[in-house]
Amino acid sequence: MDNFIFYSPTEFIFGKDTQKRTGETVRRFGGEKVLLVYGGRSAEESGLIKEITESLMKEDIEYSILKGIKPNPTDDRVYEGIAQAMREGSTFILAVGGGSVIDTAKAIALGAVYNGDFWDFFCGKEKPVAALPVGVVLTIPAAGSEGSGNSVITRLDGMHKLSVRTNVLRPRFAIMNPQLTMTLPWFQTACGAVDMLCHIFERYFSNTTAMLVNGYSEAIMRDIMARALELKVNPDDYEARADIMWAGTIAHNGLCGVGKEEDWATHRIEHEVSAIYDVAHGAGLACIAPAWLSFVAKRNPDMVWRFAINVMGVNPDGLTTEEIIEKGISSLKDFYHDLGLTTSLTELIGKTPDIDALVNSLETNMGKSLGFYVPLSMEDCREIYKSAL
Amino acid sequence: MDNFIFYSPTEFIFGKDTQKRTGETVRRFGGEKVLLVYGGRSAEESGLIKEITESLMKEDIEYSILKGIKPNPTDDRVYEGIAQAMREGSTFILAVGGGSVIDTAKAIALGAVYNGDFWDFFCGKEKPVAALPVGVVLTIPAAGSEGSGNSVITRLDGMHKLSVRTNVLRPRFAIMNPQLTMTLPWFQTACGAVDMLCHIFERYFSNTTAMLVNGYSEAIMRDIMARALELKVNPDDYEARADIMWAGTIAHNGLCGVGKEEDWATHRIEHEVSAIYDVAHGAGLACIAPAWLSFVAKRNPDMVWRFAINVMGVNPDGLTTEEIIEKGISSLKDFYHDLGLTTSLTELIGKTPDIDALVNSLETNMGKSLGFYVPLSMEDCREIYKSAL
Repeated sequence: MDNFIFYSPTEFIFGKDTQKRTGETVRRFGGEKVLLVYGGRSAEESGLIKEITESLMKEDIEYSILKGIKPNPTDDRVYEGIAQAMREGSTFILAVGGGSVIDTAKAIALGAVYNGDFWDFFCGKEKPVAALPVGVVLTIPAAGSEGSGNSVITRLDGMHKLSVRTNVLRPRFAIMNPQLTMTLPWFQTACGAVDMLCHIFERYFSNTTAMLVNGYSEAIMRDIMARALELKVNPDDYEARADIMWAGTIAHNGLCGVGKEEDWATHRIEHEVSAIYDVAHGAGLACIAPAWLSFVAKRNPDMVWRFAINVMGVNPDGLTTEEIIEKGISSLKDFYHDLGLTTSLTELIGKTPDIDALVNSLETNMGKSLGFYVPLSMEDCREIYKSAL
Repeated sequence: MDNFIFYSPTEFIFGKDTQKRTGETVRRFGGEKVLLVYGGRSAEESGLIKEITESLMKEDIEYSILKGIKPNPTDDRVYEGIAQAMREGSTFILAVGGGSVIDTAKAIALGAVYNGDFWDFFCGKEKPVAALPVGVVLTIPAAGSEGSGNSVITRLDGMHKLSVRTNVLRPRFAIMNPQLTMTLPWFQTACGAVDMLCHIFERYFSNTTAMLVNGYSEAIMRDIMARALELKVNPDDYEARADIMWAGTIAHNGLCGVGKEEDWATHRIEHEVSAIYDVAHGAGLACIAPAWLSFVAKRNPDMVWRFAINVMGVNPDGLTTEEIIEKGISSLKDFYHDLGLTTSLTELIGKTPDIDALVNSLETNMGKSLGFYVPLSMEDCREIYKSAL
């Protein structure tokens, strides 16, 4: 176990009807003038936005609205939000939605108190030291952004999808009502499960000894898979919705990465796909993760072997290490297929992707090498893209 | 899963040599005049106190010392600490030690800003609303107090051992260096493992549906048992020390209890034993926990059956539910014996305990009923004490 700092100060307010407490919670965390950020029409049509604005008004909290944030959120909306927050004198950013909305809110929170271009933090030019406080009402369990200090934004100029990770962006609170996720389209539920699983992969596949952390990470991964399959059959199962929602948070608040060297190659390889082809991040991961696993297992089999047995439930009796690994990866693909997702990039995008463009963009954003479980050259990444076709 | 709030804002600074960062961390959390609380001579003789006071002085942080805090900490030292903190104008309480030291520090932190008797919070007369900030350098992994809002203090007048739980007592930071625990006497390591296991028991044995939480709780319990047995053979194993230390924290920071009705009968039944006979809390739990499990399994077998299979590793093939449970509980007793602990109260105390006195004190402190997995009457508790003799 390496030295680490674990800091997850977010207050998670979890359960039925908790969104009714938004106003009082914003007030308790000192919010007085709120920039309310949300996505599409569904939050309006369901009555959630009305419920939230009423709960703000009840506390005499002023708010202005930035809406229409789309998946794979882009820098143009961030600039717009920063200008709006500064114009309105916003003191608190409230995100109502999933990862794209929360990440946009976080980027606005950084930019609104910075005398320069917020992108400086994403391209690594500056380190964040301050941000407006952010609160969250979560509607899509997936990105884990409600409990993380991360934000991922795509710059339209060049379609660079980059991220920042800093404790100043950890939300003050996250209101999480699993009931709100029952009306999600199945595709979003499925992509969410893939994304949270992969947040654990990025930490689990590591060369650091971590018996305790690996043990509870495996338990969380098994639960995500079982619960996602249950939801496919019965989308209104509250217990399964609740497990998936909490799993998405602890998959990414740092708990599964304590003391470990994290990898993150799979996410970075995927980010190029969703940035360039505007597909859902989780759907992209379902293609890239098995391809990445097959590639690294040939070079560093240990954790993939362990994953096959302890997470995918492969019975190792009478099998070689290679066979165990192969069975594990094919079970993972089967799981993605059972969710209704493809593991083929060509099928996902609807055409053969331009691998040169993906690799070139990856190299521009990430340099010559990425990942730690098996450090990958750009040629390795090209091979992974190819095997995911 | 019931509605819940999970709030664990403590910054955990974990790993080798981290105690050297005490001064800068106190400074970062706004500490200027520190009341330094610690226990026995071992912290002085090891050089730890010198290292910590030097690191405070380097940051120009003034400090005064309250030392000699003993296991099963008592209210007299709390009153002394409150008076000292007020006299010295302390703005920060720094605990260097295990649960007893941290709990004393927390009680002082409550009392120093309260215009009344700090015991009001422990006997339930008042609800805490404020406290001085508390920081921790942990030397004994056991109580989980470094990441909890709990404090347990014994009132000398009547030997009442009572607890308070409030977010205002969650430490601002906890510095956790597993190296510092390598020189612990084996008995303390063993009692610590029993205590942290039991912190999970209190949450695991519940009637609330909680597939995800049960899954990761089981993984943590299995790890604690495996690592404790490894440490018996090789007390210098850093990885095992690190796992045990982190497990002790997450066993009690709330993670294993989210959305569940918690029980806490075992702890309360034991508190009377350690309060009246001044034995180690963990050693008392090793007697009470199996007796409690046997009692509740007859009335509500489900979770004990699950525990036997998933944590104690009982192979259920061909066994009845009763046999599985019996095997599970006897394996747990074997584990305690392997740690070198007794599961007999008579052996622990060195004489037959006065069961009337234990039950009378329990009733005075807790009323007519305790626990939730199986609500216990005082007659039930008497039976549990008897079967633990």
